[in-house]
Amino acid sequence: MIIRIEPESDIPIYTQLSNHIIEGIARGELHPGDSLPSVRSFAADLGVNMHTVSKSYHQLEKKGIIRIVPKSGAIIRSQDELRKDGTHDELFMEALRPVIAEALVAGLTRQQIDTLVAAVINDFKGKA
Amino acid sequence: MIIRIEPESDIPIYTQLSNHIIEGIARGELHPGDSLPSVRSFAADLGVNMHTVSKSYHQLEKKGIIRIVPKSGAIIRSQDELRKDGTHDELFMEALRPVIAEALVAGLTRQQIDTLVAAVINDFKGKA
Repeated sequence: MIIRIEPESDIPIYTQLSNHIIEGIARGELHPGDSLPSVRSFAADLGVNMHTVSKSYHQLEKKGIIRIVPKSGAIIRSQDELRKDGTHDELFMEALRPVIAEALVAGLTRQQIDTLVAAVINDFKGKA
Repeated sequence: MIIRIEPESDIPIYTQLSNHIIEGIARGELHPGDSLPSVRSFAADLGVNMHTVSKSYHQLEKKGIIRIVPKSGAIIRSQDELRKDGTHDELFMEALRPVIAEALVAGLTRQQIDTLVAAVINDFKGKA
């Protein structure tokens, strides 16, 4: 899995890293039960501060994506654990709101938005 | 328009402010041609640093949402100006990707995602 960090982005680097990991899981490149690299080695690989990787892991833990186990490190939660949290709909809508707002302001129609949403889902899942 | 800044959020404060402004336009509470408050008065109203408001305005200018006019301040672009930029689809998909990935990892189905996207659009546009 190739992770490209964009230092100039408006998105904080630790959130970029979290997003890459979540997208890797969605794409099936990372799997429930997989261990993520240690903070030290991941930071060295990416050329970022250890604090940045640690902050990303805590963000992923807060989102319920990984468990942090003392000595074993960061482990992607099982499918069942990922799905048991009941607040996904609200969190999803919260994250969606600014993205949809910007599309509407740019003049995209409901149909165009639906088409682009479907395209992004297909990128992850394949056309099912 | 009520703007609530969440200092504890993973989203930088200046981006939260930009998002609120974009959502205000999408919701029809702010209009093309409207002036935004001066950096100084907006910062005082929100209880944030002037640098934060200034950074938000530059982010909105970069996104093509406002024009910054010396002495006149920040003005929301006209409908035509907002819509002329051709790269909206790509920017939208870029912003959408991590949000959709997280929903898929949480086990939301394609149908559930479509329903929630429609709900968010309805929040802005009314059921048309």
